[in-house]
Amino acid sequence: MSENKAKTITTLNRYPDRGSYTKESIYSILDCSFLCNIGFVDENANVFVMPTMYVRVGNKIYIHGSIGSRMMKLLSNGKKACITVSMVDGLVLAKSAFSHSLNYRSVVIFAHGEKVTKSDEKFKIFAALTNKILPNRWDFVRQPTEHETKITEVIGFNLDEASAKTRTGFPVDKEIDQQFDTWSGIIPCELTYSEALADSKNKTQLPTYIKNFLSKKF
Amino acid sequence: MSENKAKTITTLNRYPDRGSYTKESIYSILDCSFLCNIGFVDENANVFVMPTMYVRVGNKIYIHGSIGSRMMKLLSNGKKACITVSMVDGLVLAKSAFSHSLNYRSVVIFAHGEKVTKSDEKFKIFAALTNKILPNRWDFVRQPTEHETKITEVIGFNLDEASAKTRTGFPVDKEIDQQFDTWSGIIPCELTYSEALADSKNKTQLPTYIKNFLSKKF
Repeated sequence: MSENKAKTITTLNRYPDRGSYTKESIYSILDCSFLCNIGFVDENANVFVMPTMYVRVGNKIYIHGSIGSRMMKLLSNGKKACITVSMVDGLVLAKSAFSHSLNYRSVVIFAHGEKVTKSDEKFKIFAALTNKILPNRWDFVRQPTEHETKITEVIGFNLDEASAKTRTGFPVDKEIDQQFDTWSGIIPCELTYSEALADSKNKTQLPTYIKNFLSKKF
Repeated sequence: MSENKAKTITTLNRYPDRGSYTKESIYSILDCSFLCNIGFVDENANVFVMPTMYVRVGNKIYIHGSIGSRMMKLLSNGKKACITVSMVDGLVLAKSAFSHSLNYRSVVIFAHGEKVTKSDEKFKIFAALTNKILPNRWDFVRQPTEHETKITEVIGFNLDEASAKTRTGFPVDKEIDQQFDTWSGIIPCELTYSEALADSKNKTQLPTYIKNFLSKKF
């Protein structure tokens, strides 16, 4: 971010050198996860943070949920939300306790919810959400009925007010701490999938698109 | 939760059968993760959700951060927060798109921040945070100086207003959807660690406590 640019709600105050405001960096982090945490305030000024899945389509992310959900009711009425996505990529083990850290990728979005009302648009988002969880899945599932579409709320959030923040690499110890013989380095971590477990009512061999998904690193 | 109990801010409205309000279930979920998402409202009524690490000690969770951090300033002044911890345990692949789900464990906490002011108490929390990330690590690192302790804020949040929510097991498809030959089941997932990578300034063999950590499933 340029030094001359005025501070806005998205401006990073802590470790600004870890930040990015480009669509490219924001989209690439959002596309690596499927779980976000949505913060909003209810009519009694109580703040809530709820984990839910999302998908990015173009310059928006979308969430879905029951029309009976209090969160969906509040957010579909245009309530401003703060939506955060974060992935931990590693433990950063320095020689001093103070210099320990985490490697991570995160995005913070500020946006008003926009309700998706047209059935065909909702259908596109259902497909994107399903394929986000497991590529190609949408083509093989029993698709939503008119009733199921009606009772499911879909809400979009524009990505114009968003920032990304990332830490990568090794610990940064003070020069004076290099004298200590503490092991220093990183332990990478990631979300990994294990063997698919068939339901007792399943009668089908594990399909190729699931085998392909499991053979790839997430 | 008993039907007769009055609704409070922690009462689950959606899928209440997935909820629990016991300390045992709340503690056990909190002890399996180290990353929480903290929601709070600033002086201009903007809601923020920030990911940060935590540790549970007794009936509180603690976070730490720079005394210069806006979040730490707001929260140490007793601002009410909503803190959410969630772990995805698996993809739940039903025969219908509508019945797809995630297996997860989550905790939602409502609490006012309480600043830890005494140096010896802060030190105990630094040790707990360090060992939360990697068991036994505290005994081997250069410990915080008086200055580092002073410039690090530690805030505790009481766990009395908290709830846990969990989904486990296989998909629940409608009877009518059993006719479809879509593969149904679950794909478990978890955060896993890979080989430790030594820093260029490290001169020590990988110690036993790190080897032990890596040999255990997280």
